[in-house]
Amino acid sequence: MSINHEQFLSRAAEQMQQSAIRKMGAVLASGRDIISFAPGYPAPETFPWDAFAEISAELFASRDGAVLQYGPTRGYKPLLESILGVLEKRGIKADLREVMTTSGSQQGLDLTARVLIAPGDTVLVEVPTYTGAIAAFRNAQCRLVGVRQDADGINVDDLDAVCVRERSAGSRVNLLYLVPNFQNPAGILLSRDKRARLLEWAERRNTLIIEDDPYGDLYFDDVATAAETRPLKADDRSGRVIYLSTFSKTLAPGFRVAWVAGPAPIVERFDTAKQSMDLMCGILDQRVVHESIVRSVLDRQAAPLRNLYRQRRDVMEQTLRDQLGDGLSWIQPKGGFFLWVKLPDGFECQALLDKAMEQGVIFVIGSAFCVDGSGHDRVRLSFSWPSPENIREGTRRLAAAMEMKTVRT
Amino acid sequence: MSINHEQFLSRAAEQMQQSAIRKMGAVLASGRDIISFAPGYPAPETFPWDAFAEISAELFASRDGAVLQYGPTRGYKPLLESILGVLEKRGIKADLREVMTTSGSQQGLDLTARVLIAPGDTVLVEVPTYTGAIAAFRNAQCRLVGVRQDADGINVDDLDAVCVRERSAGSRVNLLYLVPNFQNPAGILLSRDKRARLLEWAERRNTLIIEDDPYGDLYFDDVATAAETRPLKADDRSGRVIYLSTFSKTLAPGFRVAWVAGPAPIVERFDTAKQSMDLMCGILDQRVVHESIVRSVLDRQAAPLRNLYRQRRDVMEQTLRDQLGDGLSWIQPKGGFFLWVKLPDGFECQALLDKAMEQGVIFVIGSAFCVDGSGHDRVRLSFSWPSPENIREGTRRLAAAMEMKTVRT
Repeated sequence: MSINHEQFLSRAAEQMQQSAIRKMGAVLASGRDIISFAPGYPAPETFPWDAFAEISAELFASRDGAVLQYGPTRGYKPLLESILGVLEKRGIKADLREVMTTSGSQQGLDLTARVLIAPGDTVLVEVPTYTGAIAAFRNAQCRLVGVRQDADGINVDDLDAVCVRERSAGSRVNLLYLVPNFQNPAGILLSRDKRARLLEWAERRNTLIIEDDPYGDLYFDDVATAAETRPLKADDRSGRVIYLSTFSKTLAPGFRVAWVAGPAPIVERFDTAKQSMDLMCGILDQRVVHESIVRSVLDRQAAPLRNLYRQRRDVMEQTLRDQLGDGLSWIQPKGGFFLWVKLPDGFECQALLDKAMEQGVIFVIGSAFCVDGSGHDRVRLSFSWPSPENIREGTRRLAAAMEMKTVRT
Repeated sequence: MSINHEQFLSRAAEQMQQSAIRKMGAVLASGRDIISFAPGYPAPETFPWDAFAEISAELFASRDGAVLQYGPTRGYKPLLESILGVLEKRGIKADLREVMTTSGSQQGLDLTARVLIAPGDTVLVEVPTYTGAIAAFRNAQCRLVGVRQDADGINVDDLDAVCVRERSAGSRVNLLYLVPNFQNPAGILLSRDKRARLLEWAERRNTLIIEDDPYGDLYFDDVATAAETRPLKADDRSGRVIYLSTFSKTLAPGFRVAWVAGPAPIVERFDTAKQSMDLMCGILDQRVVHESIVRSVLDRQAAPLRNLYRQRRDVMEQTLRDQLGDGLSWIQPKGGFFLWVKLPDGFECQALLDKAMEQGVIFVIGSAFCVDGSGHDRVRLSFSWPSPENIREGTRRLAAAMEMKTVRT
């Protein structure tokens, strides 16, 4: 007979929560006829299959033991050098002491939590913000305190007021977490003016900024330009910004290759921490990604991806309007994967999700993104993964779910 | 000008230490003419290149989006099913609720630390024990307390005495960490009698056992049998054992695919924790490993690997005797990758390593494996990776370093 295992858990483990997004992934994997607006999956038809096939065939044919052996925790050195080139195109000058690979940007968030967050610290985040950051930071036993968000990104006055208030109350406040480009979940592009103000704010208040940038390359050129996505890190003169980015959205997420660019002493600590977390990222994956950069596969991905996701945004916006009129509202995303939709009065996100699942469509509930208990009148709809036909059908199902006049519980 | 970043570190980060093994990897990557007896790398000439090439070509040709997409945190389900088959061959009956994939067994250790170790806990380990476990557990701010080891594995009487003593002093003692098969670093095979006694002990003292088994398949059949490697987990009736194993030594470490088999409630917590650590293991890697199991590539690896590593052990033992006579002593390993060598009087491991590096040979210092401050008269020599010629040459270099009559400092 099995014993009760709860007695052996650490306090941290007792408080860990299932990811709302990952839970939806499990629903999806159940095999039912379900259209998913839930996970931020890239469109698999965009994966450069032929290039990957060619590269991996060459790597295996080389019989170079290093392709499948243990490698340095920091990352495969030629890949790190390629990443410096990717950063340079985004306006960021860095050297090898300032970069390392991570097993997805999620690991960059986890490293941040372990190396930079002590129990009881206050960490500042937008309302709403990415659930994966909420989970990783919360595991470090910190307080997450929300800051208001405007249509052009975080409200810097509110940010400063919250920071001052928290410090007055005795909290250690060292970190602000941000997704400046096409935020997850709100789809918002942080204005250039605010980027400058945030750097100035970090200097004045002696804080660090975690800049999470998975979507910067995926701007929609009807309403945004590459220049507007320039990372804060590009103008970081004193080492205030820890920049996270990934190949998951531009090459493929299955490789789990992402990276951090930050001040050398922080990256050194991240390296040490990763040694006891998973030793290293997959080395075959790193080699394939490196070759994809060297052979310009990555560069060739960008324009078609921007077009494809822009078209899907258009389809989703149009069919939501067609199906639901003015019932739903949102700020048009200028890039990325998501619509952050406000529900009509009387609707609550979890209750709507229950109805929507009956109709065969899923999304992520808004409250999962909000550290202040708000978001129950919101849902995140991802347009990146479903085909245009599925976006239309899923929207019809959503409309059907909403006709049930789900009421706030 | 860059700011001082030390001020932002968490206490946990301040205490993290570089891995002694990983440091040696960096020396190796420097490109000097160095023969390495340091890292426990498998022999790359044993990687089944053709099978991997064929499998990955088919996976890419399939254009199945799931091959490169995000997937479940728990793991690719068909792989989890294959793993159940691997476990069954080792005598372990488990179901899908009891297994999950990890990004190397190092992540299994990190999950253990996060989910099962609270700050201030006492965790019991052998002296010596695997450095990667020491690092992962230490990061959870526990006390690591050492237990004596005999030629047939951990001393169960000492274990019980230490457990009682620690609990009397007010410590929470929930975990014993063990590598029963061809231990890292001591190469020791835990006797069958002691396996049974340990299960009984865990029951009596209400503890869990972390059974780390990377080398179980790699027994040397001149002195050991498969039956002797039967995991404790196979006879665990009440859910006391959390079993970690990996494909790193039998297929290739570059894939970072390992797994945990444990009580369902613990595995469920591990899954939740992994969600915020790295979301999932590389999915292409998981698919290649799965196909390698299904197509019997894994099974065909075992016998040749056992022969190859046994030959290397023989070469290393013979040349150490030839070069150094009775100067060094060790217990003959019955499997695995390592010789745990006792130095002659007057030698200290770090001082010897400094001299050895001048001669162009490296190893891991014994003190890195010992939580009680001992091990300065020991070194770990890995025979798995260097060719027989390099084992001979490296041993000559080691002998040259020792002729310098390094004295204890």
